[in-house]
Amino acid sequence: MKKQPTEFAVIKALNKNRDGYISGEELAAASSISRAAVWKHINNLREKGYDIEAVSRLGYRLVSSPDILIPGEIIPILKTKSLGKRIIHRESVDSTNALAKSLAEEGEREGTVVIAEEQSRGKGRLGRNWSSPVGGIWLSVILRPKILPLEASRFTLLAAVAVAKAIERLGVMPEIKWPNDILVNGKKVCGILLELSAQADKIDYLVIGFGINANFGLGRIPKEARDRATTLSEALGEKIDRRRLVADLLFELESGYRHLTGGGWKDILKDWKKRCAMLHKSISLSTLHGVVEGEFVGVDDFGAIRIKLPDGGIKNFAAGDVTVKKRLT
Amino acid sequence: MKKQPTEFAVIKALNKNRDGYISGEELAAASSISRAAVWKHINNLREKGYDIEAVSRLGYRLVSSPDILIPGEIIPILKTKSLGKRIIHRESVDSTNALAKSLAEEGEREGTVVIAEEQSRGKGRLGRNWSSPVGGIWLSVILRPKILPLEASRFTLLAAVAVAKAIERLGVMPEIKWPNDILVNGKKVCGILLELSAQADKIDYLVIGFGINANFGLGRIPKEARDRATTLSEALGEKIDRRRLVADLLFELESGYRHLTGGGWKDILKDWKKRCAMLHKSISLSTLHGVVEGEFVGVDDFGAIRIKLPDGGIKNFAAGDVTVKKRLT
Repeated sequence: MKKQPTEFAVIKALNKNRDGYISGEELAAASSISRAAVWKHINNLREKGYDIEAVSRLGYRLVSSPDILIPGEIIPILKTKSLGKRIIHRESVDSTNALAKSLAEEGEREGTVVIAEEQSRGKGRLGRNWSSPVGGIWLSVILRPKILPLEASRFTLLAAVAVAKAIERLGVMPEIKWPNDILVNGKKVCGILLELSAQADKIDYLVIGFGINANFGLGRIPKEARDRATTLSEALGEKIDRRRLVADLLFELESGYRHLTGGGWKDILKDWKKRCAMLHKSISLSTLHGVVEGEFVGVDDFGAIRIKLPDGGIKNFAAGDVTVKKRLT
Repeated sequence: MKKQPTEFAVIKALNKNRDGYISGEELAAASSISRAAVWKHINNLREKGYDIEAVSRLGYRLVSSPDILIPGEIIPILKTKSLGKRIIHRESVDSTNALAKSLAEEGEREGTVVIAEEQSRGKGRLGRNWSSPVGGIWLSVILRPKILPLEASRFTLLAAVAVAKAIERLGVMPEIKWPNDILVNGKKVCGILLELSAQADKIDYLVIGFGINANFGLGRIPKEARDRATTLSEALGEKIDRRRLVADLLFELESGYRHLTGGGWKDILKDWKKRCAMLHKSISLSTLHGVVEGEFVGVDDFGAIRIKLPDGGIKNFAAGDVTVKKRLT
C-alpha cells in the first residue's frame, strides 16, 4: 500500500511525457525518489504490462499502458472530492466486498475503493455466486453514512442510478431492474451487492459492491446465465475504456451520495424510476415465501417494491426476484 | 474449545456425587476419558476455583464450586432447545460482542453464546464505553434470523423483554427504558447492544450483547454514572445466582425469538409496553439533531419511539436518549 503514491507519481510523469523521453533524473525528481527506486518502479510497471522504452542518454518513454485498474491509472482522471482517492488494487481476490468489509472492520475510512482484475469467489445477491473473469470491473466502495440501518436500502437504489448514469455516457441506455440489476438490451450487465454492519440505531459501515460485465466475451458467462446476461463490449461491439467507466461511476456515486444525505432522496427515486422499464408492467415476484403476481406500481421510501395485487390491494415487498409476465396474445 | 464436553462431564459427575466420593475410575468412566486425563481435569478445575477434596481409596468430592459462568456450570441447568448449547467462556475479553462478531464472520452457528467474567473494552450504545468488572454478566448471543435488516430493531425490544423477565424471577420488578435499558429502582442494571451484519435484503447475523450489573459493589461503577446505575446485588441486598440468571435469560430469549419469528411481534410489543414505565409520560428525547420534547405515546412496528409533539402531531424517532421531564410543582 505504502508505495502507491510513488508508483502513481511515476506513471503520472511517464504519461505527461509520452511525446518524448524523460530522464531517470527527472523521473526521480518528479516522484521524489532515488534513481535506484525509479529503476525498481520501472521494472515493476513492466511486469504489470506497461511497455516502457529505455534509451541510454535520453531516458524513458511510455509506449503503451496495460488495461489495468491500478490507482495510478484511475486517480489522475477522477473528478470526485474524496471517493476513490484511496484505491486498493488486486490482480485477483476472493471477493472485493469481502476484502472491503474486512478493511472496514479494521477502521478503513469512508471513500476507500477496492478493485480487482478478477474475483475467485464473487458474491451476488441472495447468496448467489457471481462469475468475475478478467476484463470485468469488480469494485467495492466503503461508505460510513450517518443513517439508520433501515435507510441503507436507499443506497441500493442510489448505486443502481449511479452505475446506470455512468454506462449512459458510453452511448447506451441501460434499464434498471428492481432492485438494482442493470440491463442493456434486456440482459444483465451489472449487479450490485450492498452489505452493511450496524448497531440497532447506527450504521457502522456500508460496502457497495459493483460487478460490471465490461470487456469479455459471452463465452466467459456461465452457460445457464447466457440468455439473461451480456457484457458491455458485446452490447457495444467494441471494448470500453474501463478506467473511464470506473472514474465516471465513482463520480456519479459521490454526487448521488451527497444529494441523498442532503435530503435528496425523492430525486434519487425519480432518477431510479425513470430508468426502471418494468414499472407499471404486470410482473411476478418470486420471494422466499412464494410467488406474487400483480402490477408493479412503485417503490416505497425504503426501496421496497409496491405491487398492486389482483384483488386491488397494494402490498410492499423488500426482497425477491422480478420477472415481467409475457402477454398471452 | 475441544475439551469443553469432557470438562462438562467431569463437573457433572462431581456435582452428582456431592454427598459422597467418586473414585477416579468411576469419574474416568463417567467422562469417557483416561484416569490420567481425570487427574489433569481435576487440576484444571482446582485452578479455576473448584474446591475438590481427594481422599485415597475413596476418591474425589466436590466441596464447593466457584462463581464462574463456564459451560459445565450453565449447560446442565439450561432449559433451552438450542440457544446456549455451545458456550464460549473467557476469563477476560475486550468485548464479548466483538468476539461473537468475529466468530459469526467465520461461520459460527446460530445459538452460540460468548460469556466473559470481565471485559476490558465493553461497548455500549452510541459508541459509549461500558464498565464491565468481575461479578457482572457479560454475554453475547449469535442469531441468524431469516428477516430483513429493518426488522432487526424488533430484536432490541425482544432482548429487553427477555432480560426483564429473567430478572423478575429474582423477585424484583424491573422497568424498561426505551429502547432497551433495564432499570431497577429507577437505576440501570442492564444495557443491551445489538449489532448486525446484513445485505440489503437479508440478515447475515445478529449479535445481541447483554451487560448485566450483577454481583459487584457500587464502587466498581464509574463515578459519573453512580446516580443513574446500580447492581442487582445492591438492589436486592444479596448476591444473586449468576448461573441461574444466565440460564433464565437464555430461556426467555429463545422463547421470545421463537414467538417473534412465528408472527408474535404484537405480543412482544405488549410485553415490552407493560414494562415500560415512561410510556404516556412527558419526556425529552435527545437525538443527534437536537432535543425533542413531548408525550411518549408508543412504539412503532420497527421499535421507533412515537412522540406527541406540543403541536399535537406525532413523530417517530429511531434513535436517541429518553429522560422523563420533572414536573415543576
